[in-house]
Amino acid sequence: MDKSFFKQHISQQFNEELEDIIKRVMEMGGLVEQQLADAVNAMVEGDTEQAETVITTDYRINALEVEIDEQCTHILARRQPTASDLRLVIAVIKTITDLERMGDEAERIGRMGLHLLEADRQTAPMSDLAEMGEHVRHMTRGALDAFARMDTEQAVRVAQQDIQIDSLYESVTHKLMKQMTAAPDAVPRLMDIVWATRSLERIGDRARNICEYVVYFVKGKNVRHTSYEQMAAEATGDRR
Amino acid sequence: MDKSFFKQHISQQFNEELEDIIKRVMEMGGLVEQQLADAVNAMVEGDTEQAETVITTDYRINALEVEIDEQCTHILARRQPTASDLRLVIAVIKTITDLERMGDEAERIGRMGLHLLEADRQTAPMSDLAEMGEHVRHMTRGALDAFARMDTEQAVRVAQQDIQIDSLYESVTHKLMKQMTAAPDAVPRLMDIVWATRSLERIGDRARNICEYVVYFVKGKNVRHTSYEQMAAEATGDRR
Repeated sequence: MDKSFFKQHISQQFNEELEDIIKRVMEMGGLVEQQLADAVNAMVEGDTEQAETVITTDYRINALEVEIDEQCTHILARRQPTASDLRLVIAVIKTITDLERMGDEAERIGRMGLHLLEADRQTAPMSDLAEMGEHVRHMTRGALDAFARMDTEQAVRVAQQDIQIDSLYESVTHKLMKQMTAAPDAVPRLMDIVWATRSLERIGDRARNICEYVVYFVKGKNVRHTSYEQMAAEATGDRR
Repeated sequence: MDKSFFKQHISQQFNEELEDIIKRVMEMGGLVEQQLADAVNAMVEGDTEQAETVITTDYRINALEVEIDEQCTHILARRQPTASDLRLVIAVIKTITDLERMGDEAERIGRMGLHLLEADRQTAPMSDLAEMGEHVRHMTRGALDAFARMDTEQAVRVAQQDIQIDSLYESVTHKLMKQMTAAPDAVPRLMDIVWATRSLERIGDRARNICEYVVYFVKGKNVRHTSYEQMAAEATGDRR
């Protein structure tokens, strides 16, 4: 984030509180990114131990959400922020909700990885799933980076990566359905891979949400239900 | 909501602003409930016209979310609420996010209903899906009702309905997978019913979220990551 943003506050302690919140959001985001990478790896490689670790680590993300949420409420009550300070706190409250749900999806992927048979993994499009996982991880990191620097141009670029993820999602599920048709007995197990693919697609959606909050904070505009072109126009428009 | 809650404010206009927000959340919730009922009916009955209407009506829910969100930000900036007033505004901000996503899921169900073949609908467990839809609609209405009255005991009761919805979800997807195994050529179309079932299950999750915000508002406790027993204990505990 542009550090000059914090300097405008008369209260040094308020600056520190806001900086601390952003730091913890980044900590939470880093944990989500790691969980995501581990969950996909556990599934693709059939590493059940790693999958178990992903499942048992989710509570740390949940705890961070509760803590940051309380910090935000505390700031709203004590500092009564207005204008961009208020938008920052609201953007944080929304971001941590999405991060927490992204953590849930990573946990789900971990659970799905537990019951796969080696035979299914041999025939399923696991390399495509790994590629999709890598794109989603990259997008998540990009969204967090845009948030840390409150960079609207980056936010718009990162949000557009969701198009490619959706296309990968279509491709992977198409292959999985063909595989189910060819090997109907494997349907229940292949469904687990379908769910994991869906979870990845949802994580991409939520990373896009975080990009939208960056534009909301910087420009004061809600771009949730707009096209990528409108989002880009808002992001590059004049600062209010 | 207990009307006495509003009377504590010195400013009559502030009371009216809060009442207006709750009224609009209820309006938004009513729309979501209707969309959900219509989407499930369109799918179960194969009514493509109704499905189209669900898809084209979603924008109204989105618009309400943006409007209420702006009203909340405005109140935070101008009224600088503290204590339970602040919690109310935060609960509203979170509730409308969930309602908007519930609307998205209803729209998804509508889309899935468009491409089903009559033959698939004949063999798929559509009556189970209809039953699940009815439970989810009932739970959504209960959550909104608990929110309107800020009734924590009702919130806990409604949240627990999610157990039954999850169980119906397991049963319907199990039947669908058996059907896929028996008729592999129908896999791509049956997957649409699987997605619709998943959307219903997710709407139940989000209705539970709304119940949690009721407890948060009344008791000042975040019960997001707790068991039903803990949630009930917080909900019936002493008011802070």
